[in-house]
Amino acid sequence: MDTAPATARRGRPGHDREGVLDAAVALFNERGYDATSVADVAGRLGVTKSALYHHFPSKEAVLDIALGRALDSLEATLDRPRGERTALEELRDVFRGATDALVANLPYVTLLLRVRGNGEVEQRALSRRRTFDQRVTALVAEAQRDGDIRDDVDAAVAARLIFGMINSLVEWYRPDGPIDGSRLGHDVVTLAIDGLLPPASV
Amino acid sequence: MDTAPATARRGRPGHDREGVLDAAVALFNERGYDATSVADVAGRLGVTKSALYHHFPSKEAVLDIALGRALDSLEATLDRPRGERTALEELRDVFRGATDALVANLPYVTLLLRVRGNGEVEQRALSRRRTFDQRVTALVAEAQRDGDIRDDVDAAVAARLIFGMINSLVEWYRPDGPIDGSRLGHDVVTLAIDGLLPPASV
Repeated sequence: MDTAPATARRGRPGHDREGVLDAAVALFNERGYDATSVADVAGRLGVTKSALYHHFPSKEAVLDIALGRALDSLEATLDRPRGERTALEELRDVFRGATDALVANLPYVTLLLRVRGNGEVEQRALSRRRTFDQRVTALVAEAQRDGDIRDDVDAAVAARLIFGMINSLVEWYRPDGPIDGSRLGHDVVTLAIDGLLPPASV
Repeated sequence: MDTAPATARRGRPGHDREGVLDAAVALFNERGYDATSVADVAGRLGVTKSALYHHFPSKEAVLDIALGRALDSLEATLDRPRGERTALEELRDVFRGATDALVANLPYVTLLLRVRGNGEVEQRALSRRRTFDQRVTALVAEAQRDGDIRDDVDAAVAARLIFGMINSLVEWYRPDGPIDGSRLGHDVVTLAIDGLLPPASV
């Protein structure tokens, strides 16, 4: 396993660890994990299979690291200490942070959202996703108890609907498309918290 | 092709057209359309392949009819004459109607949302989805021009985010689960239009 800093040698695809990871994730998303072989990844990069095994012990290890990266970026939004924030303020930060994490790690989160639980690596990723969902639901419930948000929508349903909105980015947002990715965090927070009704009616 | 009314002989799976359609859609969702053969569908139903060909000329015809059913149910929400409704009122009805259509036709819409455009049938379905999205975006833009909803979120982005919320149902709503499907239309409309903030703050 190459233990050099992940970003140190970017720009030489196939010869650095990041390049291998990016190429593998792209292929997993295009063809599915099961349908992609180590030889396919090597072929895409124009290197030998043994060049890949220099970086990763197995295809499963690549999947594990890729899913871990997606989950780490999402969980980071919940792992910040609460500090002075109310539950509602933390929710805003989580919605915005998760949206920014999706935009920044689009192929990795796309892979995560397609995981169906085949094998131990995928099972572990699904378990971390469930824990994430439960923590968001708990935050929604806390903001409801604070009286800061409506309580006529079940906390778990609200959490799932709002993350449905965020996760839908992997279906329609393209970094090279016309939509400004840096604006999406604002748009998600606005719709989730304030809704479509104009501020004037508040 | 069996031209008997689709619902006339429900309850005899494998021997009526609806039963074949339901079984085929379930298998397409479990294994993927390409990985499912007519023999698989026959096997699931415990009938011969020729029993299936009595109802449908080909696997592609089954896909076409299944995707058409999902699209018809969604488009029906937009096809009601505007009448006395404002654009905002129509939007509410479309969000609620689309949510109810998803709940009522869950396996069919699940299949539709997984379509990636392989082959002519899938291309046609994607084209109808695009037209649907454009019509919803036009409604959002009209409500913005009316001054009835905020205009600091792009109409196309708002439409995609809200349908992301609705479409996420296929990932987490289960008819036999703890969530009341008949309530989801209310929850979606509430979040999309009013947001999480409590009515008291309006």
